[in-house]
Amino acid sequence: MTHQETIQISTSGHKDMHNITAQVADIVRRSGIKNGMVHIFNIGSTACIGTIEYEDGLENDLPELLDHMIPPSREYGHEQAWHDGNGHSHLQATLMGPSLTVPVSGGKMPLGTWQQIFHLECDIKPRHREMIVTVQGE
Amino acid sequence: MTHQETIQISTSGHKDMHNITAQVADIVRRSGIKNGMVHIFNIGSTACIGTIEYEDGLENDLPELLDHMIPPSREYGHEQAWHDGNGHSHLQATLMGPSLTVPVSGGKMPLGTWQQIFHLECDIKPRHREMIVTVQGE
Amino acid sequence: MTHQETIQISTSGHKDMHNITAQVADIVRRSGIKNGMVHIFNIGSTACIGTIEYEDGLENDLPELLDHMIPPSREYGHEQAWHDGNGHSHLQATLMGPSLTVPVSGGKMPLGTWQQIFHLECDIKPRHREMIVTVQGE
Repeated sequence: MTHQETIQISTSGHKDMHNITAQVADIVRRSGIKNGMVHIFNIGSTACIGTIEYEDGLENDLPELLDHMIPPSREYGHEQAWHDGNGHSHLQATLMGPSLTVPVSGGKMPLGTWQQIFHLECDIKPRHREMIVTVQGE
Repeated sequence: MTHQETIQISTSGHKDMHNITAQVADIVRRSGIKNGMVHIFNIGSTACIGTIEYEDGLENDLPELLDHMIPPSREYGHEQAWHDGNGHSHLQATLMGPSLTVPVSGGKMPLGTWQQIFHLECDIKPRHREMIVTVQGE
Repeated sequence: MTHQETIQISTSGHKDMHNITAQVADIVRRSGIKNGMVHIFNIGSTACIGTIEYEDGLENDLPELLDHMIPPSREYGHEQAWHDGNGHSHLQATLMGPSLTVPVSGGKMPLGTWQQIFHLECDIKPRHREMIVTVQGE
């Protein structure tokens, strides 16, 4: 059995993080699937999805870390070709990955107490974001 | 068809890596599924799962690399709020990701000869860890 | 419903990137699956798969970034044991991950306009690479 829905969010630009756990849990519930997995995918190449303890400290630490490892200031080949100022955004998103898969057990996601699903905007301007959520199982 | 089991391990704390390939292969075999995929998910936000050539050198290199990129000594916002000393653990685990999906072909995982499935503890103290393994296919 | 095929490519060695989007899309089409997901997995521990805006700048930037974060020149434990010169290749591939899952909607992958699927060779010599592509859904 396959159930598919989308999640839409608006982001304020670089470093804006959203906790999408409740929206994914709602889709899992509506799917009626008891055991299987749920996959969340961000359409586009400058945002990422993962799991984190969702609290103010880490909500700031993760984008800071990505800027430390992949600084906006570095001269990327992408910049030299396109001059759109988001070479680091692409590389941060590619490193983190556009998607996440979580199991479904007894109709729920067995996440840890301090483990939530986040969407992180890596692009430099506000974006409308669409995610495809696919639940598969029985 | 969906088959789900758990793997339980005890870790000694930061940098402790486990080779869980045989346990996952056993679950794939017990599932009776011949073609599909198997998903392994770590419950909790301070450990990660991936593939690696499982040998002593890399077993040390990977956690060393993570400590180099995301050092325990840096002042993280998570630390300032919670003072539990594991800000780097969260960030290392989020960067690596909590899960892995491997195909199932002819009832087996077609891994490379030097490609194994690992669990890496990023937290600073010994932990009991539970992973959910979901096999889907036919 | 499960459909499985392989993709074969030859790489020229370290930093050689391939755009495999069209090959994956062909497999999705041949599967006849309308809604579900497709999983692409690289067999072997020294190459990776992900999504990126596939253009010349980023095709150079991503491997440059990986060499910056995980330089070939560093003394890895893997080197001291095996002396095969590819310790960084293993770590780069493990960090990036060997696989990617993309949703299937209406028989197609809903990728962004500037979001393609890449295979990146991290090993230091030319390799023949096999990927397993698994489509699941209905």
